[in-house]
Amino acid sequence: MNDVRPVAVRDCVIGGPELVVMAGPCAVESREQIFEAAEVVAASGARFLRGGAFKVRTSPAAFQGLGWDGWKLLREAADAYGLRTVSEILDEDQIEGARRHVDLAQIGSRNMQNIPLLRALGRSRMPVLLKRGFGCTIDEWIHAAEYVLREGNEAVVLCERGIRTFETATRFTLDVAAVPIAKGRLGLPVIVDPSHAAGSRDWVECLTLSGVACGGDGLLVETHPEPAKALSDGPQAVVLSEFPALVEKARRVAHALGRTIPARARVAAAC
Amino acid sequence: MNDVRPVAVRDCVIGGPELVVMAGPCAVESREQIFEAAEVVAASGARFLRGGAFKVRTSPAAFQGLGWDGWKLLREAADAYGLRTVSEILDEDQIEGARRHVDLAQIGSRNMQNIPLLRALGRSRMPVLLKRGFGCTIDEWIHAAEYVLREGNEAVVLCERGIRTFETATRFTLDVAAVPIAKGRLGLPVIVDPSHAAGSRDWVECLTLSGVACGGDGLLVETHPEPAKALSDGPQAVVLSEFPALVEKARRVAHALGRTIPARARVAAAC
Amino acid sequence: MNDVRPVAVRDCVIGGPELVVMAGPCAVESREQIFEAAEVVAASGARFLRGGAFKVRTSPAAFQGLGWDGWKLLREAADAYGLRTVSEILDEDQIEGARRHVDLAQIGSRNMQNIPLLRALGRSRMPVLLKRGFGCTIDEWIHAAEYVLREGNEAVVLCERGIRTFETATRFTLDVAAVPIAKGRLGLPVIVDPSHAAGSRDWVECLTLSGVACGGDGLLVETHPEPAKALSDGPQAVVLSEFPALVEKARRVAHALGRTIPARARVAAAC
Amino acid sequence: MNDVRPVAVRDCVIGGPELVVMAGPCAVESREQIFEAAEVVAASGARFLRGGAFKVRTSPAAFQGLGWDGWKLLREAADAYGLRTVSEILDEDQIEGARRHVDLAQIGSRNMQNIPLLRALGRSRMPVLLKRGFGCTIDEWIHAAEYVLREGNEAVVLCERGIRTFETATRFTLDVAAVPIAKGRLGLPVIVDPSHAAGSRDWVECLTLSGVACGGDGLLVETHPEPAKALSDGPQAVVLSEFPALVEKARRVAHALGRTIPARARVAAAC
Repeated sequence: MNDVRPVAVRDCVIGGPELVVMAGPCAVESREQIFEAAEVVAASGARFLRGGAFKVRTSPAAFQGLGWDGWKLLREAADAYGLRTVSEILDEDQIEGARRHVDLAQIGSRNMQNIPLLRALGRSRMPVLLKRGFGCTIDEWIHAAEYVLREGNEAVVLCERGIRTFETATRFTLDVAAVPIAKGRLGLPVIVDPSHAAGSRDWVECLTLSGVACGGDGLLVETHPEPAKALSDGPQAVVLSEFPALVEKARRVAHALGRTIPARARVAAAC
Repeated sequence: MNDVRPVAVRDCVIGGPELVVMAGPCAVESREQIFEAAEVVAASGARFLRGGAFKVRTSPAAFQGLGWDGWKLLREAADAYGLRTVSEILDEDQIEGARRHVDLAQIGSRNMQNIPLLRALGRSRMPVLLKRGFGCTIDEWIHAAEYVLREGNEAVVLCERGIRTFETATRFTLDVAAVPIAKGRLGLPVIVDPSHAAGSRDWVECLTLSGVACGGDGLLVETHPEPAKALSDGPQAVVLSEFPALVEKARRVAHALGRTIPARARVAAAC
Repeated sequence: MNDVRPVAVRDCVIGGPELVVMAGPCAVESREQIFEAAEVVAASGARFLRGGAFKVRTSPAAFQGLGWDGWKLLREAADAYGLRTVSEILDEDQIEGARRHVDLAQIGSRNMQNIPLLRALGRSRMPVLLKRGFGCTIDEWIHAAEYVLREGNEAVVLCERGIRTFETATRFTLDVAAVPIAKGRLGLPVIVDPSHAAGSRDWVECLTLSGVACGGDGLLVETHPEPAKALSDGPQAVVLSEFPALVEKARRVAHALGRTIPARARVAAAC
Repeated sequence: MNDVRPVAVRDCVIGGPELVVMAGPCAVESREQIFEAAEVVAASGARFLRGGAFKVRTSPAAFQGLGWDGWKLLREAADAYGLRTVSEILDEDQIEGARRHVDLAQIGSRNMQNIPLLRALGRSRMPVLLKRGFGCTIDEWIHAAEYVLREGNEAVVLCERGIRTFETATRFTLDVAAVPIAKGRLGLPVIVDPSHAAGSRDWVECLTLSGVACGGDGLLVETHPEPAKALSDGPQAVVLSEFPALVEKARRVAHALGRTIPARARVAAAC
């Protein structure tokens, strides 16, 4: 049914019958915020806590993240609730330090063709989440993955997050067909980020459910306790209190297609 | 759950809890072909038989359809299996004659902003299926629908069929978020055409299931007994023998979301 | 130098060494407006007066044009200043009546794949200006021209007017490379419309000069005596009083490339 | 006429009345190749020799450049013919070493939002050529420039090189309107790269002349002694023997608009 070679991140397997939910705020902003997110996210059945510490922002005047302090908080919150962590790495120099904090190293959309970074993460052997460049074709995305694989690192998970089109009602256009197409090229798992494509939380449910229906091996969702106060990407963050219901709907679609999303997080020791 | 004003086409309701499946070949090619399609399509739970008689082809050298003979065959095949018909109307002059053959008058993607045609179908009071122009925004699509509504015709169903983007791995990029967004604007039902976006039958399942998951009120799918011999759009036609399994998958996703696709066509008299 | 087969519209030749300037308001609004435009446009060296009478507007609530009265005014104003006329035809039914008023029948961007209209204008033998669909490839544009040619009408001029892209700083993105590419396919002349691509008069000069530099055989420019009061597309209309300076710049670029724009209109009898 | 704050690169000024031509092969491949290019390029009136040493290639299997040896050859060839050098820098670690070889540090299209690199080049105070990301809006491009400026480096030149659109007849679509728009935002000079947009040398002349007509402050053109043997981007390289004629045409358009391209390189000592 799912013709991919699963990728293990510590004790979690991405690309197997279980869909892996990754969720949390766009950026780690405070201890309170990230712990609150971790608790709800874990209780909903997610396996990974997301949260940016070093942010790539369009404007240099925008909030750039808490840096190393952000990663420490992410790790603590994840550990407290039995979650793994996923976070973006911007620079080769961050890799060594990141190992303690980040289980799955995200290469962001804007860095998809940052060749030195692809190679460095390839050499690092850290599991990599490679987001599709919003202006890049599936072919280019696959070639970018090859830069990582070529260094001997086979732990690559792809993430479809929407491409840039003329339509402005959403921030990007989620390319659902890219999920099976990309899987078929290298046999790597592909997860879906409904948040960046939506740009508004109003359309996150639609894209989440489509992301499951199209064959995604997981979801990467932005959720925030108080989106109106978020320091970045607030408009697209699902309100944390509504996150469990969203996962429940995704779970039902997954079941309909013979896959699963665990009902709630197992205890920390188990995953 | 579904905040639209349903549209009735004879005894079928589009926009209610039941998803309406419309299927058949791109073009009516022969009596044998369209009857064979109608039988399988009806047995799978579809309510409408699709089939073009007047085709809009990119090149004038390509097959342009059987014309009025095509519509007669479409009507006969649909009647034989208790199906309604949906087919594209190109020209105001065809409307009167079309009434006998076509239950749901499709305005094709290339004609979405053909104002005289929009107005004429508005005046005709025929139920209209308005496909989104592949180069048009959701806003423009809604305005095009207003041209029909403004003439007093409220029986308008929208159809998302993919937009043109830089990605060439598929023929178009299905804009799943457009489904809830368009519904929210005028309260019209929106169905999804997975075939034209896919361009290849390999990706039709992915887009069909996404089309249900995103909230589509129905599906418009191309299927052909022998796609390799099809006179138009063969590569994207689902092989007819595989069509029932596709609908079965879509049905399961629909159920997961509280909606239904009937298990098989009722007898002709009932619909 | 210019490898096209020139097209004659009455006594004007498009596709020869002389660049043909067509200009005027988006829509004919009043006798005063169109005569004022005609006078300045003619004095600047333009050969055609443009002005819409039947408008294709995105919204049905927008001004739809003066209809037949608009065409009569266009003809009178053009005749008074020795200009030819170019105006959009929306519908086959308008063709016969249009002959008296319109010298060059424009098929608008939204109608580029309106097959019945293409065929009808092909049969009419009226000279046709075929605008590129804003969501259409060069290939599709060429095929659309073939629908006209196939009916025996060889008087086809193409018009590049910008395509839809993700960039929102302009209304469309002028595809300058499309000019030599399209010329090379069928040997038809290609003119450039800088106004619709710009969307704002601030960028019309840039696109006008680029349209000459890329090899355009003419220009189709919107200009209005008082753009702030225009009933359609005011923001992109060049202020009429600034139009002569724009043509003068275009003339200098044309000369640099071995082509000409006449210094001012000849008397009516001569053209 | 040109409302930008000129940027000096050694003794060359970009953004003044003189258009600055930068040309050479996509990649430095051999001493013979780069010297041959430098000679012709200088004789044509170009002021900068381009040539990649560290290439960003879509596929890791493609030629990745000669590295430091490439930069040494570039410097030698440029010095021999009185040219300045422009070459892409991929990584912060290359900056210090690059100073000896590279006069104008190019940030490639794929790295436009590589924030650490933008900041590092900002701190370096090397003159920077910031190419537009092919999937990025003008707004994002301007914000990327601000990352460099914010570190105190005001020597930023922008380069429009085409954006990704649905049209496949060219590799990218040159966005000529972006030139005046980008200039107007921060007052930085903008040059045009016709080669990457064209993708084929057949369309380089069209885009070169449009790049001058739209107000570009310079040109960045790929030319190669034997494009058929080029290790990267051969199809879009102008044949070196035809390069002088191309510059001559550009020069005539520049003159028509009140700007200049020097008739031939001055002696090395003078720049």
